[in-house]
Amino acid sequence: MDIFKENERIIEVINKAMENYLYEKEPEKLYNAVKHLPMAGGKRLRPLVAYLACEALGGDGMKTIPFGVALEFIHTFTLIHDDIMDKDEMRRGMPAVHKKYGENAAILAGDTLFAKAFETISMIKNEAIVKRLTRNVAIMAKEICEGQEMDMEFEEVEYVDEQIWLEMIEKKTARMFEHAAMGGAIIANANEDEIEAMRKYGLNLGMAFQIWDDCLDVIGNDIGKPVGSDIREGKKTLMYLHSYRLNKEALKDYGKGGDVEKIIELFRKNGSIEYAKKAAYEYSNKAIDAIKNLKESKAKDTLIKLAKFAVEREK
Amino acid sequence: MDIFKENERIIEVINKAMENYLYEKEPEKLYNAVKHLPMAGGKRLRPLVAYLACEALGGDGMKTIPFGVALEFIHTFTLIHDDIMDKDEMRRGMPAVHKKYGENAAILAGDTLFAKAFETISMIKNEAIVKRLTRNVAIMAKEICEGQEMDMEFEEVEYVDEQIWLEMIEKKTARMFEHAAMGGAIIANANEDEIEAMRKYGLNLGMAFQIWDDCLDVIGNDIGKPVGSDIREGKKTLMYLHSYRLNKEALKDYGKGGDVEKIIELFRKNGSIEYAKKAAYEYSNKAIDAIKNLKESKAKDTLIKLAKFAVEREK
Repeated sequence: MDIFKENERIIEVINKAMENYLYEKEPEKLYNAVKHLPMAGGKRLRPLVAYLACEALGGDGMKTIPFGVALEFIHTFTLIHDDIMDKDEMRRGMPAVHKKYGENAAILAGDTLFAKAFETISMIKNEAIVKRLTRNVAIMAKEICEGQEMDMEFEEVEYVDEQIWLEMIEKKTARMFEHAAMGGAIIANANEDEIEAMRKYGLNLGMAFQIWDDCLDVIGNDIGKPVGSDIREGKKTLMYLHSYRLNKEALKDYGKGGDVEKIIELFRKNGSIEYAKKAAYEYSNKAIDAIKNLKESKAKDTLIKLAKFAVEREK
Repeated sequence: MDIFKENERIIEVINKAMENYLYEKEPEKLYNAVKHLPMAGGKRLRPLVAYLACEALGGDGMKTIPFGVALEFIHTFTLIHDDIMDKDEMRRGMPAVHKKYGENAAILAGDTLFAKAFETISMIKNEAIVKRLTRNVAIMAKEICEGQEMDMEFEEVEYVDEQIWLEMIEKKTARMFEHAAMGGAIIANANEDEIEAMRKYGLNLGMAFQIWDDCLDVIGNDIGKPVGSDIREGKKTLMYLHSYRLNKEALKDYGKGGDVEKIIELFRKNGSIEYAKKAAYEYSNKAIDAIKNLKESKAKDTLIKLAKFAVEREK
């Protein structure tokens, strides 16, 4: 059965909670912009990971809801601001916030969601947990900014070292999965070894997700973006870096209006797609490996399924 | 003696702490943009208020430093983003962050400072205080966004009700002084009556500061902006609203390239400058009144001096 179908009750709770925590109404124009993206759906992966991590360690997943919602607010805030910076006009199949409400409203809507995230975390009862999660989420948000800066800087150069590229996606994407899983474990009052196991699970899951996402952009996808949009925008990906090492001459038009089909064909011929897929599989396996010693549970099974889904999905 | 000269040792500690808390170095381009405004000086009023409020209630002001630094980071972050939205090119006598580093870097620098604020708050040892301050500061930041939205919306209309205008500056400016003073009291472990007294002090101080700032824009100032810049930009102020009620015809060119000198003369003739000054004096007196029953101390004296300074200063 579909992993999201199986967990639809939890996702329903998360969606309802997001709506409830965004209780503000005025100024109307601001809150219309604030609610546009969070209420436009999404897989709610990060809150789901937090919920499952907590349950897998014997905690009550419902206690992770404010934290999960906070992560989703931060995720959405970064999408809103990134779309301004990257001049992306579509998101989740709809006009981006800055396209629909203007750039000023989008800057402010992102800021408001960022603030809401910490307001939401502060609603958790246990003070020690609030302190720890506030610190973790703040540092995570800072690192997301660092990752976005690195990503933008990479657009200006022809090639970056693969290790540095991996650091970029670690910060920009994987950290949030890392903190989702780790936060769920913290809320479960798990011991430090269990928290560390979940941290590793989340980090590797996030890496797998991002690398697979980049592959989907090339092999076809259903995430509301046209196929090859990364190639058109000149985004550095593992496939690009791999092919660059083999045929750098063939990539001189990358992101400069070159033929997208030709580049996809090059990636295929060079084995760059397989190379990236293999990397994603390895991260997925590492994620599963990180939690293999935890007690068996339905939540643990679902986390394992999720790590497999990360590198099998078509959207 | 000058109030800042008298407290230069505290301000030095605040400056040093800001530098220490901004310990990050890479990506270099991001952190150059992040540090541009926080390191460009400033009166450090909010951290100073937090320090003094704590001391006036028997606490150790040094314990407020991380909190005060967090407020200063949030203050700076809002200035960076506001300058993008308002297309202001100068700040503290220097090019605004988006002017110097570009708009993308400025969006990201603001976001990073916002994250740093919560990282810094989480460094306070007492968990109950971290939880309370995280909540307060998050809601404050959200309200600052609401105030900025109101301010931008006011630019589109000819007149707003004075009560609604006051709500705007309360959110956009005064809240942060409110939380500075209240946070200082919370860190001092003061009782709820004392916390409430400090809250009122801070809120009224902030209102006095902002209204006086608007007056300085008209009667001459030394804050790095040319005289009459609010008039040129069509910013709604208490003076404008007062004059509008008396001579709305004479203000039809307000913010549309009309003669600034003529408008200042109109404000003067209508008694609008005196009207705004009187409002500022009243807030200043309310601030002083709010803490009059607290035990005498050097810190309390300084807070009173600060409330007087708010409506006497020339910059």
